[in-house]
Amino acid sequence: MIKAIGLDADDTLWENETFFRVTEAEFRRLLAEHGDAEAIASRLFDAERANLARYGYGIKGFMLSMIQTAVELTDGAVDGRTISRILEMGQDMLAHPVNLLPGVADALDRLAGRKLILVTKGDLMDQERKVAASGLGDRFTAVEIVADKTPEAYARVLHGHGVAAEGFLMAGNSMRSDVIPVLELGGWGVFIPHELTWLVERVEAPDHPRLRQLQSMSDLPDLVARLEAEA
Amino acid sequence: MIKAIGLDADDTLWENETFFRVTEAEFRRLLAEHGDAEAIASRLFDAERANLARYGYGIKGFMLSMIQTAVELTDGAVDGRTISRILEMGQDMLAHPVNLLPGVADALDRLAGRKLILVTKGDLMDQERKVAASGLGDRFTAVEIVADKTPEAYARVLHGHGVAAEGFLMAGNSMRSDVIPVLELGGWGVFIPHELTWLVERVEAPDHPRLRQLQSMSDLPDLVARLEAEA
Repeated sequence: MIKAIGLDADDTLWENETFFRVTEAEFRRLLAEHGDAEAIASRLFDAERANLARYGYGIKGFMLSMIQTAVELTDGAVDGRTISRILEMGQDMLAHPVNLLPGVADALDRLAGRKLILVTKGDLMDQERKVAASGLGDRFTAVEIVADKTPEAYARVLHGHGVAAEGFLMAGNSMRSDVIPVLELGGWGVFIPHELTWLVERVEAPDHPRLRQLQSMSDLPDLVARLEAEA
Repeated sequence: MIKAIGLDADDTLWENETFFRVTEAEFRRLLAEHGDAEAIASRLFDAERANLARYGYGIKGFMLSMIQTAVELTDGAVDGRTISRILEMGQDMLAHPVNLLPGVADALDRLAGRKLILVTKGDLMDQERKVAASGLGDRFTAVEIVADKTPEAYARVLHGHGVAAEGFLMAGNSMRSDVIPVLELGGWGVFIPHELTWLVERVEAPDHPRLRQLQSMSDLPDLVARLEAEA
């Protein structure tokens, strides 16, 4: 019944948002004389959101939005040292270690033998680096890096793997990106919240018969078994 | 005999490098008081090349390398207006029109019915935008956007489409990215040079029995027919 399981990567398999938060905190300190912490964070968020359609998701777009915000907040008086520091901060993010979330390796062990598809969005090269660094690459039938997690993007992935939406279950920490588009297609959506989730990804849970919520990846193998037993 | 044809996108199907050249020329003018044109171009190229492993290919990485070069060339004295202008220049690139190269639409018409795979590298979102804007999306069996055009990346694409390398022909303007890795895998490589090709992509042509060179995409359908007749 569940023919394929899709798994989100960032903040579902490994830590990600925490690196953005740490960098954002340093960005606020760097520009502290040009506004209070909240005002700086809010300007940066506005820039990120406005730039999403042109930059897409990922660290390079975040770097460009930090640079733009630094120029704007200082009325053009930003100095080269600050710009350099922002570039370094972004480059550090692009090299950050990949720390698996608790229970992930074990859950993947218990799901072994199933068609597992990692579905993630962001910078192509950075996502590939993280898959390699995670050591989990071999656990997946396929790694699909998409520009955005729209119903159309999921439909393309499913088509490529010959899987009908009814037999697809997607699990991840973003209600907006991992759950809702898959429910819309007719699949199962499993929401595994992470304490840090970017504001853009946080939307209201719909009331839906194929939506489930779990505490952690550790609970996923049992849920899959249960859904199949009920079918 | 030729089971699938891979086509590069940038400077094979549509203009691309010209937008980088125009932007680079403006970058040189913007920083003209900090070095002669050649020195600025050479510093920018060094930064781009050094950043390739962390940023990958594409416009966002180019923007970040321009910003870094501006800070370095001015010894940190770059002003916010210059940084803003660089951001605008990059954003203009990300919105540039997609101009098909001569003969492309006709060549694709003549190849219709074959398994055509567009294989391109760079920013995921930007490449998808260009495919959509080109109006050519429907001509392809699949669009594969990869982080880098290594033999491994081609092998993954071929595996995903169930095509053996011996039955794969790849055509493009980069000897390094479109031709050599496919020859290495055991496929056919068709080099279609473009007058503007980034220095990084230009490498010596190997002496190889499965390498062909064409003047333009217009000649590709005949070449494919000829290779099949000879087989």
